[in-house]
Amino acid sequence: MIGVDDVRAAARVLAGVAHRTPVVTSRTLGEHVFLKAENLQRAGSFKFRGAYNKLATLPEGRDVIAFSSGNHAQAVALAARLRGVRATIVMPEDAPQAKLEATRGYGAEVVTYDRWREDREEIGARLAAERGLELVRPYDDPLIMAGQGTTALELLAEVPDLDVLVTPVSGGGLIAGCATIAKSLRPGVTIVGVEPAAGDDHARSLAAGERVRIEIPRTIADGLGAPEPGELTFQVNRELVDEFVSVEDVDLVEAMRFLFDRMKLVVEPSGAAGVAAFLRGKLPSGRVGIVLSGGNVGAARFADLMQ
Amino acid sequence: MIGVDDVRAAARVLAGVAHRTPVVTSRTLGEHVFLKAENLQRAGSFKFRGAYNKLATLPEGRDVIAFSSGNHAQAVALAARLRGVRATIVMPEDAPQAKLEATRGYGAEVVTYDRWREDREEIGARLAAERGLELVRPYDDPLIMAGQGTTALELLAEVPDLDVLVTPVSGGGLIAGCATIAKSLRPGVTIVGVEPAAGDDHARSLAAGERVRIEIPRTIADGLGAPEPGELTFQVNRELVDEFVSVEDVDLVEAMRFLFDRMKLVVEPSGAAGVAAFLRGKLPSGRVGIVLSGGNVGAARFADLMQ
Repeated sequence: MIGVDDVRAAARVLAGVAHRTPVVTSRTLGEHVFLKAENLQRAGSFKFRGAYNKLATLPEGRDVIAFSSGNHAQAVALAARLRGVRATIVMPEDAPQAKLEATRGYGAEVVTYDRWREDREEIGARLAAERGLELVRPYDDPLIMAGQGTTALELLAEVPDLDVLVTPVSGGGLIAGCATIAKSLRPGVTIVGVEPAAGDDHARSLAAGERVRIEIPRTIADGLGAPEPGELTFQVNRELVDEFVSVEDVDLVEAMRFLFDRMKLVVEPSGAAGVAAFLRGKLPSGRVGIVLSGGNVGAARFADLMQ
Repeated sequence: MIGVDDVRAAARVLAGVAHRTPVVTSRTLGEHVFLKAENLQRAGSFKFRGAYNKLATLPEGRDVIAFSSGNHAQAVALAARLRGVRATIVMPEDAPQAKLEATRGYGAEVVTYDRWREDREEIGARLAAERGLELVRPYDDPLIMAGQGTTALELLAEVPDLDVLVTPVSGGGLIAGCATIAKSLRPGVTIVGVEPAAGDDHARSLAAGERVRIEIPRTIADGLGAPEPGELTFQVNRELVDEFVSVEDVDLVEAMRFLFDRMKLVVEPSGAAGVAAFLRGKLPSGRVGIVLSGGNVGAARFADLMQ
């Protein structure tokens, strides 16, 4: 379990390095809805927070490896560049082209694999051992969770009286960090995680009281593809998350369109999950904070999704 | 001619009503490039500044009429709603659907016309006379120019040491207001206007020393469709604008893609003109401020343009 002090320590590490992203509102959504625009974060998503927080604790010059469906990859690649170390990134070969290119653009070496047949954790562990690299996990690491929690710390600094805090959920690192700090600063806040309907492993796990592994979800939300909750994240989330709700892919597309047309914001499918849940009436009432977790969709893929 | 005091007066009128839009940067463009994100302005473009500044000076309860290719329409419609008066908007029947809908969405009555065969100024003048409405011109009005100038006033407050200030140009109201304040606050600044190559009436007019009327430009930049400089705006711009450069439609699309992919910002074709000129190497060197003038493109049209 992580604590409030871990999140506050991460905030100090990230000060002046991560963007303090804006909190934006829309009259159409209502004046009680606050969007934390992590799509405008460095490397395009909240993942930079955890990755940099992790890398900042490693011995100087220690090179790193990560496996990721995309945003964690870019985050580790950028964090490595900023820290002056080398990054090897294991990515699914069918990851969006924009994410593959961006990761290479940050100077990382990309190793691809077939995510329907190969196990990324195995590949990552093997390469880490062979090359003597530090494995940077995408969510199951206290430093990663604490880094992601700075998102909620900043949101609550701007909007202290939130009733509901909503984030997308894949491995559970973002919501674990956010719930840790939010439940401390504002004990009555309701924490809601949003999953794609095809990948509701957190909802099932919470109902079962233990981690449930599902088929790798087929969804447009490529950032929400983890087939089971993390071990450490689930320990946090089973205690602190009040509810997991799910949204369909069509809801994600509508939310992306809304954010584009009305708010002029580029948000990727995963990143729009909270707004999708709101527009579908799936969130509790009150003053709602929603994390727009990322914006790495690419113009070509966005155009395809809007057809 | 307008003066610095007119722009400062407009800033007081707009305080707390218009958004103070963010100035954003990108490492890819360079740390010497500053984008003023008027795509995040109310009603989706800088036009709100001038429209509200104008309406705020009218006698209470005076209804208004405007003719516009889109953004001025939405701006006047929103300003009218905020001032509690009725707006009639004359729009080309082939204006982007998103703009027609948004204008109606603000509660305005929309009257459409054929912009290849009918003269919008005639229609506007006739309706104004028939219905006793105040005509709100899109640019050829000192209060409109002064309102638009607050864009540069804000940009220079954040980045006082600009060497170059760049805006898109249609009728010339934005650049007239911006040049007025910028040349006063920073006399050495170079003012550059960007036009679509198919609609370079300002460049031709400056070369000729008098207003030149061209064919109605066929360009994707629907916001830059005025066929000649305004009478009042040209009086200002012939004195204060250093250079007009032009960009092709393909350059606008590339700039839109760049802003989407790298900066997660939705910018319409007209609004991307300054970045297009920068990416094509058409701007003077130094610390460059570029106005992203609007974001009203709509997801469907954006998708079409990216094909």
